[in-house]
Amino acid sequence: MIKIGIVGGTGYTGVELLRLLAAHPDAELSLITSRSEAGLPVAEMFPNLRGHVDLAFSEPDPEALAACDLVFFATPNGVAMQSVPALLAAGVRVIDLAADFRLKDTGEWAQWYGQPHACPEVLAEAVYGLPEVNREAIRSARLIANPGCYPTAVQLGLLPLLEQGGIEPDRIIADCKSGVSGAGRKASVATLLCETSESFKAYAVPGHRHWPEIRQGLNTVADGVGLTFVPHLVPMLRGIHATLYATLTDAGADLQALFEQRYADEPFVDVLPAGSHPETRSVKGANTCRIAVHRPQDGDTVVILSVIDNLVKGAAGQAVQNMNIMFGLPEQAGLEGIALVP
Amino acid sequence: MIKIGIVGGTGYTGVELLRLLAAHPDAELSLITSRSEAGLPVAEMFPNLRGHVDLAFSEPDPEALAACDLVFFATPNGVAMQSVPALLAAGVRVIDLAADFRLKDTGEWAQWYGQPHACPEVLAEAVYGLPEVNREAIRSARLIANPGCYPTAVQLGLLPLLEQGGIEPDRIIADCKSGVSGAGRKASVATLLCETSESFKAYAVPGHRHWPEIRQGLNTVADGVGLTFVPHLVPMLRGIHATLYATLTDAGADLQALFEQRYADEPFVDVLPAGSHPETRSVKGANTCRIAVHRPQDGDTVVILSVIDNLVKGAAGQAVQNMNIMFGLPEQAGLEGIALVP
Amino acid sequence: MIKIGIVGGTGYTGVELLRLLAAHPDAELSLITSRSEAGLPVAEMFPNLRGHVDLAFSEPDPEALAACDLVFFATPNGVAMQSVPALLAAGVRVIDLAADFRLKDTGEWAQWYGQPHACPEVLAEAVYGLPEVNREAIRSARLIANPGCYPTAVQLGLLPLLEQGGIEPDRIIADCKSGVSGAGRKASVATLLCETSESFKAYAVPGHRHWPEIRQGLNTVADGVGLTFVPHLVPMLRGIHATLYATLTDAGADLQALFEQRYADEPFVDVLPAGSHPETRSVKGANTCRIAVHRPQDGDTVVILSVIDNLVKGAAGQAVQNMNIMFGLPEQAGLEGIALVP
Amino acid sequence: MIKIGIVGGTGYTGVELLRLLAAHPDAELSLITSRSEAGLPVAEMFPNLRGHVDLAFSEPDPEALAACDLVFFATPNGVAMQSVPALLAAGVRVIDLAADFRLKDTGEWAQWYGQPHACPEVLAEAVYGLPEVNREAIRSARLIANPGCYPTAVQLGLLPLLEQGGIEPDRIIADCKSGVSGAGRKASVATLLCETSESFKAYAVPGHRHWPEIRQGLNTVADGVGLTFVPHLVPMLRGIHATLYATLTDAGADLQALFEQRYADEPFVDVLPAGSHPETRSVKGANTCRIAVHRPQDGDTVVILSVIDNLVKGAAGQAVQNMNIMFGLPEQAGLEGIALVP
Repeated sequence: MIKIGIVGGTGYTGVELLRLLAAHPDAELSLITSRSEAGLPVAEMFPNLRGHVDLAFSEPDPEALAACDLVFFATPNGVAMQSVPALLAAGVRVIDLAADFRLKDTGEWAQWYGQPHACPEVLAEAVYGLPEVNREAIRSARLIANPGCYPTAVQLGLLPLLEQGGIEPDRIIADCKSGVSGAGRKASVATLLCETSESFKAYAVPGHRHWPEIRQGLNTVADGVGLTFVPHLVPMLRGIHATLYATLTDAGADLQALFEQRYADEPFVDVLPAGSHPETRSVKGANTCRIAVHRPQDGDTVVILSVIDNLVKGAAGQAVQNMNIMFGLPEQAGLEGIALVP
Repeated sequence: MIKIGIVGGTGYTGVELLRLLAAHPDAELSLITSRSEAGLPVAEMFPNLRGHVDLAFSEPDPEALAACDLVFFATPNGVAMQSVPALLAAGVRVIDLAADFRLKDTGEWAQWYGQPHACPEVLAEAVYGLPEVNREAIRSARLIANPGCYPTAVQLGLLPLLEQGGIEPDRIIADCKSGVSGAGRKASVATLLCETSESFKAYAVPGHRHWPEIRQGLNTVADGVGLTFVPHLVPMLRGIHATLYATLTDAGADLQALFEQRYADEPFVDVLPAGSHPETRSVKGANTCRIAVHRPQDGDTVVILSVIDNLVKGAAGQAVQNMNIMFGLPEQAGLEGIALVP
Repeated sequence: MIKIGIVGGTGYTGVELLRLLAAHPDAELSLITSRSEAGLPVAEMFPNLRGHVDLAFSEPDPEALAACDLVFFATPNGVAMQSVPALLAAGVRVIDLAADFRLKDTGEWAQWYGQPHACPEVLAEAVYGLPEVNREAIRSARLIANPGCYPTAVQLGLLPLLEQGGIEPDRIIADCKSGVSGAGRKASVATLLCETSESFKAYAVPGHRHWPEIRQGLNTVADGVGLTFVPHLVPMLRGIHATLYATLTDAGADLQALFEQRYADEPFVDVLPAGSHPETRSVKGANTCRIAVHRPQDGDTVVILSVIDNLVKGAAGQAVQNMNIMFGLPEQAGLEGIALVP
Repeated sequence: MIKIGIVGGTGYTGVELLRLLAAHPDAELSLITSRSEAGLPVAEMFPNLRGHVDLAFSEPDPEALAACDLVFFATPNGVAMQSVPALLAAGVRVIDLAADFRLKDTGEWAQWYGQPHACPEVLAEAVYGLPEVNREAIRSARLIANPGCYPTAVQLGLLPLLEQGGIEPDRIIADCKSGVSGAGRKASVATLLCETSESFKAYAVPGHRHWPEIRQGLNTVADGVGLTFVPHLVPMLRGIHATLYATLTDAGADLQALFEQRYADEPFVDVLPAGSHPETRSVKGANTCRIAVHRPQDGDTVVILSVIDNLVKGAAGQAVQNMNIMFGLPEQAGLEGIALVP
C-alpha cells in the first residue's frame, strides 16, 4: 500500500481525489490537511464520502507528511512551492495539482501568477504529468506538475497532427468550454448558481494562465506555435469541451487513421469513429479523453473535438494515473469507473 | 460467474444496469435484447460504455435467455409478465425492474396498469425486492419484483416508526420530488429540457401508480394506512427526495436512536446525524439511501427526509443488490461506487 | 410621476425592482444607494439594464431620500428599521422588501432575527402588504411590510379555505420549494452552482423565519393555527412551489368554486381549471400566483398547489403592486409583463 | 391596428411571438392556425399566456388568412412556400420565420433542405430581414425571410470588420453555442432534459443549414468568404453565443471605435465597452444583440463575442422588428422588454 497524504483537499479537486483514492486498491489514505477545517471529519463536508473516508482534516504537520510515500497538493497556486523542497528532501514523492510547477520559465511563471517562483531549482526537475507525452519521465519522477484541465484537453487534441507536421503551427485556435467546477469551491458571487446557470459567456479573452501552459506543451513538439485560446463557462458542473481549429498542411491526409494510431495504446484516450461528436457527459466521472476529428466541407481546416471531465482526466484522475505510473502499478488501477449517464 | 441476460435496456434504467454489471466482479453479461435496436452496439447508443461493454443489442431469443442464470427485465410495464413464466419454467431466475409483479392484488394491478395481469399464479410467488424488509425471502426467490423508485424512498423513511407503532398510520403524507430521469428515455415533449428545466411542478396528484405500491408495502407492517402521495418533477437528472409527515403517537420518543437502530446493519441505508438535511447529490450514482428525522418546534409532527438515486437504489442498484442476495454474493459486490460530487 | 429612491439594490430583489420600475409608466427612478458600490453605474453590475437604467449607485444620503415620494428598501434584514422613522417623519412613504416590519410581535421578531427591534412604535403602524388581504389598509399606509416569498405563496393558497372554516387549522402542512435566487446575491459556498445544481434538499426544518410570518398571517383569519413548514432548495433560478396539505371539515364542499370566487376580482391570482398542476415557469418574470386545488382519492385531505416567481409576486412585483395601490394607480401598471416560456 | 395571422405557432418560436404580439400596442392578433391542435385554446398549451391571449388554435383557412394585413409563418421548413404566393396575391404581407426564403440560390436551397423550392419567383423578391443590413428594403417588402438564429449573431458580429475590409475573408471561424430551445418543441429523444442537461457537445460539424445562409450574407459585403462554422449545444434554455475568429488586415485599427460607429444608430445592437465579455443572460427575453471585440496578446487575430436570445433577436423579436419597419411603426414598439436576470 502506498501511504498517501493530501495537502488542501477542501475543494472540488480534493473531493474528487478522495473519491478516487478511497476506492483505489493500492492507496492508503494517511492524512489530509486543511488549516481552516482542521478537526472536521472529511465526510461531514462531503457527505458522499460517508462510509468511505473516515479521516478528519488535520493541521498541516511537516513530520506527518514526511512519513508518507506520496503527497498530493490540492492547494491554491503558490502554496505547494513553499513545502515541496523539504518533502523531496525527506524522500517523499509529490504530485502538485495546482500550477506551481507547470511552467518551466520562472519569468513567465512570475508574470502569470503574480509572484516570484519560490524554488526554481526544484521546478527544473519537475515532470509535466501528461502521460501520453511524458510517461517514461513520470516513472522515475520525484515531482509531478499535474497538467491543467484545459491544457490536457487541448494538447491531447492537437498532438497527433502537430507531432507529424500535419498542421500549420502558427495559427491554432482553441475555443474551449468548461463546466463551473473548474472555478473551484470558494465563496464568490461570480460562480453562484444565479450568476452562471442559464447563461453562457467567454472569459479571460485577453489572457488566461492556461495559455502559456498550452503553448509550452505544444512548443515541445513543434516550432513557432501561435495560439489563440478562448475559454468559456458552461452552465453545468463538470466537463471540458475543446474545439480546435488549424490549417492542414496536407488536406489529403487520413486524419482518422492518424489519430487512431497515435492513441492505439493509450488506456485513457478514446478516438471516436469518423463523423462523431463527443459529449462531455460521456466522460463524466471517468478518466477518459474522447476525441473526434473532422474536416468540414473537405477543406483545409481541421476541426478537432476533445472532451474530458475537468475534475478527473483534467485533475484528480490524471494525478492518480501519474501515481500509478510512478509506483509501477497498473496504469488503470482505481481508474476504471464508468462515466455516469445520464 | 453469473450468466446474465437483459431484456430491454435502451432506457436509463438499462444503461445504469449495464454500468453496474460491467463493473461487477461476478457478473457475466451474456446478452441484451431490444427489438427496435437489434444489431446496434450498446456502446454506440451509450458512449460512456465504450471500452466496457462490447455487446450489441440482439433480437429477443427465448432460447438464449433460457440459457442464462438470471434475466433482468428493464422493459415497459406489461412486457415482462408475458415471458416470465416460461423463463421460470426453464430454471432461470428473474428480476423485473418494471411494475408487473409489484402489486399483489391482480384487480388493483389491472386498475392501475390498464390491462389484466397475464400470470396471476406467478405473481403470487414474486418477492417484493426491498432487502431491508424481505432479505430472507429474496435469498430463495425465483422472481423478484424490484420496487419502484418513490416506493423505495418512502418505505425506507417510514418503516422504522411505522413498524414500532410510533406514528398514526391513517394520515401519512409523502411529498416526493424526482429528477427527470424517472420519466424514462422516450421521445416526448413533456420531458424535453425546454419543458422541464428551470421549472418545478407537481404531477399526478389525483393518482399515481406508486400510491398503491407504497400503501401495500406500509400495510404489511401496520393496519389502516391512509396515505396522501404527491410527486413533483425537479429540474435535474437524478435523485429522489421524499419529505414525509406523520403524527407521532409518543412525542417523547428518541427518534434518532430508533432510526439508527433500525438500520444499524443495513449496508445501504445511512441515517444522518440529528439535525441533518440530506442532499440528493450525496447519493448520485450510489446505491445508498440517506435519511434524517426531525421534529420541528418539538411538536407531534415528525418530518422524515429520505433521499436516493432513483436509477440506483431506486432501480438498477437495488436490482443488483437483489441479485447479490439471491446468488449468495456479498451484498455490496459491485455496488461500492461512491456518489459523484459535484 | 412618483419620485422613487431605492436603498440597497445590489441583490436579486434589487435588480428585479429596477427592471420593473424602469418600465413603469408612472415611476421616476431618482436615486439608488449602495455604500459598497457607490459610483458604479447600475448597468455595469447588471448589463441587462444597459440602455434602460442610467443611474449609478450613490452613497446613502438622508436628504436625497427625504426628497423622494417613496423609498423602497431592498436591504438585508435589520437595516431598514434604522432609517424608516426619519423618512416617515419627512413625509416619505416606505416599502420595505426585507423582514423588518413583517412580524407584529417585537419579542417574536427579536427571537427570529437575533436583535431587538429598533422602532416598535413604527412597527405598529406598518401594514402587511398582501393586497389580497389588506388592500384597503395599503391604500393609506405610510409604511408597507412587503411579505416574504414563501408567506405569499402559502397564504394565497390557504386563505380561501381557512377564511371559510373549510379546513382544520391545527395540522396544516406547507411543503415548499424555492429556486436559488431566494438565497440572495452574496459570496457564499452554499449557493454556488456546484453546490446546488443537480441536487435537491430540504433546509431549515427545525425552524425558518418565514414560519412565524405565515402563522401570523393565518392566525388573522382563523384561530388555533398549527403549521409545519418545510422549505426545500430547487436547482433553478426563480420560482416557488407551495404544496399545502390540510384536513377538510366538509369533504363535500365545491373547492374549485370556492377558490374561483375568492379570487374572481384579483388581478394577480389565477385559479387554474380543476385537475391542473401549475408549473413555476408559467409565472417566470410575472407578478401572478397560479393555484390549483385537489382532493386525491376523494378523501378528506385537500392538496393545494400554489406557484409564484419569488422575485416578482414574492418580492419586487408585489412591492410595485403595493406602490400602485398606495398612489392610486391602476393596480396592474407596470406589471403586465408575460412570463417567459421556455 | 395591424391585423395579424400566425400559421403554426405551437413551437417555441410561436409562443415567443405570441408573448411579444400580445403586448404590442399596434398588433391585433386575429387568428393562429394549427392543424394538429385546432380547437385548443392557446393558453392551455402555454399557461404563461393565460389572461393575455384568448385565441384558440384553428384549422388553416386561406380566406381568414387572406383577410389579415400580415401573416407570420412559424412552421417547419418547407411549409410556408406552399402558401405564400397565394397570400401575396391576396395583398397580404408575409414574414417567414422558417428557412423557406433565406437562400437566394434555389439549387443550394434544394441541396440543404432536401426538396425543390416551390416558388422560385417569389423567392426572388423576398427580402432577408436583417434590419441592420437591409432596413430600407424591408420597409417596402411584401415578403420577409426572417434570418436564422446563428446567422443573426454571426453576421452582426462580423459585418463591421468585413464591410471595411478589416479582416481576411477567406479563413473565418464561427464557433457558436446555442441553448436547447433552438432545436424546437417536438417529441424527440435527443433534446430530452436527460440527454442534454449537464453535457456539452458540438453537432453538425460536417455541415449545418445555417452555413450557406451565413456565407451568403457575408458574401454580400465581401468577396471570397471562407467560413468554418461549428455549432454546439449548451445545457440551457435560451441564448446564442458566437465566438468569431479572423485575421486582421491592419492590426493597428481601432476596433472598438469601428464597432461603436457601425452600430451607433442601431436600437438593438449594443457594443460593450472594451474588455467586456457579454453573457447570454444579459439578453434573455430581449431583442438585443450585445457584442464585444478583442485582440488577444495584441496579435493579428481578432476575437468577436456576439450574444443574442435565439428566440427573440434570433427569431420572434426580429420578426416583430421587421413588422414594425414594414408598417412604419417605431422600430422598438413592443420590443422594449428588459432581459430577465437572473
